[in-house]
Amino acid sequence: MANAIRALTMDAVQAANSGHPGAPMGMAECAVALWGGMLQHNPADPKWSNRDRFVLSNGHGSMLIYSLLHLTGYPLSIDDLKGFRQLHSKTPGHPEVDITPGVETTTGPLGQGIANAVGMALAEKLLAQEFNRGNQAIVDHHTYVFLGDGCMMEGVSHEACALAGAWKLNKLICVYDDNGISIDGQVAPWYIDDVNQRFAAYGWNVIGPVDGHDVAAMQAALAQAQASTEKPTLIRAKTVIGQGSPNRAGTAKAHGEALGAEEIKLTREQLGWTHEPFVIPASVYADWDAKKAGAKAQEKWQKLFDAYAKKHPELAAAYQRRMAGELPETYAKLVADLLADTDAKAETVATRKASQQALEAFTAALPELLGGSADLTGSNLTNTKSTPALRFDGAAPNGGRHINYGVREFGMAAIMNGVALHGGYIPYGGTFLTFSDYSRNAIRMAALMKRRVVHVFTHDSIGLGEDGPTHQSIEHAASLRLIPNLDVWRPADTAETAMAWAAAIARQDGPAALLLSRQNLPYAPKADLSVIARGAYVLAEPKEVGLRKKAQAVIVATGSEVQWALHAQQQLATEGIAVRVVSMPSTSVFDRQDAKYKAAVLPKGLPRVAIEAGVTEGWWKYGVDAVIGLDRYGESAPGGVLFKHFGFTAENVAATVKAVLKQKR
Amino acid sequence: MANAIRALTMDAVQAANSGHPGAPMGMAECAVALWGGMLQHNPADPKWSNRDRFVLSNGHGSMLIYSLLHLTGYPLSIDDLKGFRQLHSKTPGHPEVDITPGVETTTGPLGQGIANAVGMALAEKLLAQEFNRGNQAIVDHHTYVFLGDGCMMEGVSHEACALAGAWKLNKLICVYDDNGISIDGQVAPWYIDDVNQRFAAYGWNVIGPVDGHDVAAMQAALAQAQASTEKPTLIRAKTVIGQGSPNRAGTAKAHGEALGAEEIKLTREQLGWTHEPFVIPASVYADWDAKKAGAKAQEKWQKLFDAYAKKHPELAAAYQRRMAGELPETYAKLVADLLADTDAKAETVATRKASQQALEAFTAALPELLGGSADLTGSNLTNTKSTPALRFDGAAPNGGRHINYGVREFGMAAIMNGVALHGGYIPYGGTFLTFSDYSRNAIRMAALMKRRVVHVFTHDSIGLGEDGPTHQSIEHAASLRLIPNLDVWRPADTAETAMAWAAAIARQDGPAALLLSRQNLPYAPKADLSVIARGAYVLAEPKEVGLRKKAQAVIVATGSEVQWALHAQQQLATEGIAVRVVSMPSTSVFDRQDAKYKAAVLPKGLPRVAIEAGVTEGWWKYGVDAVIGLDRYGESAPGGVLFKHFGFTAENVAATVKAVLKQKR
Repeated sequence: MANAIRALTMDAVQAANSGHPGAPMGMAECAVALWGGMLQHNPADPKWSNRDRFVLSNGHGSMLIYSLLHLTGYPLSIDDLKGFRQLHSKTPGHPEVDITPGVETTTGPLGQGIANAVGMALAEKLLAQEFNRGNQAIVDHHTYVFLGDGCMMEGVSHEACALAGAWKLNKLICVYDDNGISIDGQVAPWYIDDVNQRFAAYGWNVIGPVDGHDVAAMQAALAQAQASTEKPTLIRAKTVIGQGSPNRAGTAKAHGEALGAEEIKLTREQLGWTHEPFVIPASVYADWDAKKAGAKAQEKWQKLFDAYAKKHPELAAAYQRRMAGELPETYAKLVADLLADTDAKAETVATRKASQQALEAFTAALPELLGGSADLTGSNLTNTKSTPALRFDGAAPNGGRHINYGVREFGMAAIMNGVALHGGYIPYGGTFLTFSDYSRNAIRMAALMKRRVVHVFTHDSIGLGEDGPTHQSIEHAASLRLIPNLDVWRPADTAETAMAWAAAIARQDGPAALLLSRQNLPYAPKADLSVIARGAYVLAEPKEVGLRKKAQAVIVATGSEVQWALHAQQQLATEGIAVRVVSMPSTSVFDRQDAKYKAAVLPKGLPRVAIEAGVTEGWWKYGVDAVIGLDRYGESAPGGVLFKHFGFTAENVAATVKAVLKQKR
Repeated sequence: MANAIRALTMDAVQAANSGHPGAPMGMAECAVALWGGMLQHNPADPKWSNRDRFVLSNGHGSMLIYSLLHLTGYPLSIDDLKGFRQLHSKTPGHPEVDITPGVETTTGPLGQGIANAVGMALAEKLLAQEFNRGNQAIVDHHTYVFLGDGCMMEGVSHEACALAGAWKLNKLICVYDDNGISIDGQVAPWYIDDVNQRFAAYGWNVIGPVDGHDVAAMQAALAQAQASTEKPTLIRAKTVIGQGSPNRAGTAKAHGEALGAEEIKLTREQLGWTHEPFVIPASVYADWDAKKAGAKAQEKWQKLFDAYAKKHPELAAAYQRRMAGELPETYAKLVADLLADTDAKAETVATRKASQQALEAFTAALPELLGGSADLTGSNLTNTKSTPALRFDGAAPNGGRHINYGVREFGMAAIMNGVALHGGYIPYGGTFLTFSDYSRNAIRMAALMKRRVVHVFTHDSIGLGEDGPTHQSIEHAASLRLIPNLDVWRPADTAETAMAWAAAIARQDGPAALLLSRQNLPYAPKADLSVIARGAYVLAEPKEVGLRKKAQAVIVATGSEVQWALHAQQQLATEGIAVRVVSMPSTSVFDRQDAKYKAAVLPKGLPRVAIEAGVTEGWWKYGVDAVIGLDRYGESAPGGVLFKHFGFTAENVAATVKAVLKQKR
């Protein structure tokens, strides 16, 4: 069974002349131990909600999971394997969720797979606590992870695993491919962690070292891990990278390139594997086949669920709705009411506070919202009355819905991705906008994976004041807008903030980032609230400031700078200059609007001035004539002082508009 | 002495009504233990090369270091302290290097200070090995760090501390402010790390828990740490956050806000501190004064150095040159020769290979170049014949100059910042461009701190091929260009790569990022090599493809896409359409050129088309009429297939130019 994995791996990597044979060949017996009967899954229904989750954190070993999915009976054919790493195949270079049935998360960027898995195990534990009743455990599965030295070295593994220990995620079981080799060679000179000690320090159950090529020993270790009631488990599997290859095994050379025809021949000989490339004997297929057992397992669960649904119809419906990622039918009304309320109140508050107000409404109505903050709860204002702090002091979680992630931005983001991938919750989490840098690749991964994760980034721009340039985001709004499929919102007031939240929660195919102010922002009255959802809209025409003529120019602004645009409009009006103010809370969303709407907001030929307290670079695509921005780092001083110091004033906006108009004349 | 810190902290935070009193008040006795005689420093010469380095990794506690610098006699007056967190004061919200004398690194983004310190301790160890002779230890100092729970939780602390253990940095001494409180409250629910066990797992010497309010106990612990010959030391100091404040001590409330007038009064009473705000009695000043001892210490070292210089004049001169960050006089010729050589050879190689070729020349001539890679040495090609792998197996480092950082991108970047801050080396390090995401905030910190660090980011764009979208940088070139004061280079061939290196090494006030191809790129003949240094230049005029007329349009390209621009120029020439090709390896550098040069490269009125295999957003600022780019994620397939698939072809460039010309007509 293990050699079937080795053969498929060698052959596919050789056919592509590209790929990583070392890990699949080294972990083949570990895979047999787990996938050869222990894993609870049904190849015919890769989306079965109570399946065990399996994460290949060392994603470069993708041929391992492709082999397993093929061999156990998933809809992944031998031709799919032959298409390894080719355009639009179901077997891309690294495993990608939604591309290959049975792949739970996209891995490759090291350390994030294990962090995703922590999120999945967390979601399982919380759903179990929320939905299971009596002995009807409709949520009851494990999360398994394979990970390598690379994941261990990455800092995000520290963050996520420390949390897994604190959260007592006993159903998280990790197999560490302890082969002592990374790309640069034998790891000893740069990696001497005593992994047992390290994970014990996190409150984990550590098993091993175990011989990773001994299937029975690995099965025993996995069984022992399943018995853990309070701690996640790390099984340290001693393996040989590229096991089976006479000349490459145990060397870095096995890691990331095809073995070559000659070495493959020798490996086949050593393994006694006599079959042609991509040919697996029927008996081996039969040994691997998990379809029957999988169907039976799911059938059993379905019976349990049907009985549960009879007894708890509302809970069952809620579970199904949430696992499908659907919102309740009342959602549209909830949003409309909330928006109308913000408009009626017209409050002057910080948008981080506006966010909390919106969250009060959303978290009260949507039990799937699972909040958190990277140790900035009181600053990010991500907590609400409906989301008490989640605690794991007792035998079961306390039912809380706000997570103190600690000072672990990257871990938080990658864990949130795992929660979203598992399903059942919509995760959101906060930190300061500047520290989106720490979690940036996990934000990207959510966007790439098209998962609904909401990032609450408060203390945007120099507006945060005294904390100074280390904390003042300058390039971050522009930089986040560059990430494909990430919706970035920088709202200007309570209504825009509410709409940003409404859109982020409703979005089913990608993450959102909400960039929020530390400081108070005035409410800007609006003729039409629904139009905020289009990402940009005409906030104030010249008539709003008493001018009858058409606009001669457009000022585009976002977030805290919208107020200066409006003041400038007034100032200019006193000189008879008519301008339109466009508020653009989300460039990402506006860019998706049809050409007609875009032209209506930004009419052709009208001079345009943009203002945003950040780098100017992103604005030129809107054909602006001038940008009032900040292409340098900020300073430590009160926020109000800084805005003036750097020219974010109505006077400067007005002067810039006049200069542009003069130049155009 | 400790209460003087507490008083100054309370008063300054209160005056600013902003800041973090908790850590300075909690660590006051730790500070007395270290700064009250043990630290080797001279307030009159904060730049003395052999001073002990002190890093406040929990940078929010900035009033701790400001108090210490003021009290021990640095040029930081009581008025400077009164200006805490005010515009252009010498006491910004977080400590900033070059703003405040005696501040060694800018801290605030948690976890990075300790990583910087690892870099400093590494630099010390390597310089000692390189320069010390016999009993003349001209390099011989400690690196001390204060850090808190936040730094401990951050993943980058895992990466950096694991390396410090592997590197046996015995002169790195860290005091962990173990107060059990972070912003969200008592950390137990989200932070249960057994820190002793964790650091033992890294190969550290761990002392404590020690009573952090017992000066003698702390002094004993520090002395014990100084005796360590093979291991870095962590002293776990049990402290009470906000110690001295009767109602705030031991609570999260002490962390990040002013105590308020009433509580300050009560604290003064509890401490028995009867002095007015910002008043320190002369006797306390006298106890703290380190000027005399500092002058003596430096004098002693100077004598040692003078004797050393007599015996080893060349070594002494090299040490002084390198600590001053100056390049040898031969540098200009080295660069000119290298460039001429690349031009003469006109090789078709990947720019990552071109980078290695350039590095061969630079590392042979410049012993201060200290290379490395985050476990991708053979891919990044950051190693050269002059830079064997650095090893710490024996009693001293082996004299190697290429560091295997392991899979630790963020740690590597933050450690490199520390090396650059220490002085004596110019650090460079490699990873894949996409994983610049992991290290992004450390790159930013180098730019903010104006330090010379070179990032080698290979496998740029979809050109890397089969590894797929997780590894293909799409938004990264554009995104790095947004970081103020970071020079980004994306060279097209060997000459541009050599110039990028030449500029990065010569640059004394900021970092550079070199974005390099995995795949081969043809050499583009150049009329003038020196002009590459201006960031963008006219690579080929119509006459180069046999047309006598003036250009009707400009194609701007970078890196691997320059070849398509040149091919398109040829294709268009066959139709009689004359275009100029501009190669723009560095937008950052080009943007700094004078208006005249810019206009000469991109003449007004000429239609412009840009081509770059990445997001299009950054190009509009150059007034382009069209951009051929990629505003979505890539795919897993061979690189050549992807370029065609996504329209990066000469045909598409030519067609786009024609469409733009037609539209403009």
